[in-house]
Amino acid sequence: MQIAILLYDRFTALDAVGPYEVLSRLPDAKVTFVAEQAGLVRTDTRQLSLGVDATLGEVERPDIVVVPGGPGQVALMQDGPVHAWLRNAHEHSTWTTSVCTGSLILAAAGLLQDRRATSNWQALDQLRGLGADVVEERVVFDSKLATSAGVTAGIDMALALAGKIAGEQVAQAIQLGLEYDPEPPFGAGSPATAPAAVVEAVRAYSRFA
Amino acid sequence: MQIAILLYDRFTALDAVGPYEVLSRLPDAKVTFVAEQAGLVRTDTRQLSLGVDATLGEVERPDIVVVPGGPGQVALMQDGPVHAWLRNAHEHSTWTTSVCTGSLILAAAGLLQDRRATSNWQALDQLRGLGADVVEERVVFDSKLATSAGVTAGIDMALALAGKIAGEQVAQAIQLGLEYDPEPPFGAGSPATAPAAVVEAVRAYSRFA
Repeated sequence: MQIAILLYDRFTALDAVGPYEVLSRLPDAKVTFVAEQAGLVRTDTRQLSLGVDATLGEVERPDIVVVPGGPGQVALMQDGPVHAWLRNAHEHSTWTTSVCTGSLILAAAGLLQDRRATSNWQALDQLRGLGADVVEERVVFDSKLATSAGVTAGIDMALALAGKIAGEQVAQAIQLGLEYDPEPPFGAGSPATAPAAVVEAVRAYSRFA
Repeated sequence: MQIAILLYDRFTALDAVGPYEVLSRLPDAKVTFVAEQAGLVRTDTRQLSLGVDATLGEVERPDIVVVPGGPGQVALMQDGPVHAWLRNAHEHSTWTTSVCTGSLILAAAGLLQDRRATSNWQALDQLRGLGADVVEERVVFDSKLATSAGVTAGIDMALALAGKIAGEQVAQAIQLGLEYDPEPPFGAGSPATAPAAVVEAVRAYSRFA
């Protein structure tokens, strides 16, 4: 089972590494980090780089596609090699997935038209404008599409997907292996629960503002 | 504020990238991924590589040290350049931290003697044997040491640390930025809650068995 995770300049590392850590533990999984060019890709903070193990042309028909989000998504909203690769891969994939603003790229490539989908809480209006049927849930499945909310939601999405692919026991074993029994020290993980001042601060700072 | 994250062959990616994603968002944070040699370091699955941005000798006095875990930890239990670097860095650090079996490396380097500390649930006996005062909690603070349980616990540890460093509002803004409002699809994230068959399967599979 080949899993292709798309890398691009200024992606958010955890959007990619969360699902990688879960999906790479599925039986017979082979994760390949792909990008337009070989080499290294820098994350949004510029403080981390990940190695590209194959170019897009080298992994044309993965079973699972994962598209992370991040500020670099903005540069991938026009048609081009990434959109062409996504459309072709999606035609043959078993699952096409995204984390955070990765769903904006899927939508821009035409893959989310009238599909139930989600994204980072600050990107939902834009996702709606691109033709998706926006659902404000952390993980949203629609046929073979799985989209998730911001950054850390990719872990929940990947675990749910692992359950669908390999059964509940395997997914639970992966969860235990990752000791994923979260205890956030604060309750500010969603705009519905964060203090209003924190929500405003994040909005003001954000590229979506 | 310089944050050094130690990389080594066969580390677990999420152990490093979880704390990176949180701590890199602190005001004035500069994260540097360090290793004995420059180049790329491969993770435990061999399916992902991260770039090393500095050698150990180039970052001798970071403010924060993060030691991830992973199967490669086994090769770092003898005294050597990594232990020497850790002892020296710890002498000057503001915080010395670990995720998962990273605490076994800290303990082997002599930094956890009689200190309250934790690790992956399967490594607690070994940690105790190395002289630590083992506490079965997800995140454990003892003076300037912060250790955490397996893999994903590094996210919780880093958020708690962010709160101590920059205050609760900043930590909450980081949490909201990462939309860290976890909804695990299963309740199997700890040996206390996972079905017995799942716990046994993970034990049987594991290097700690």
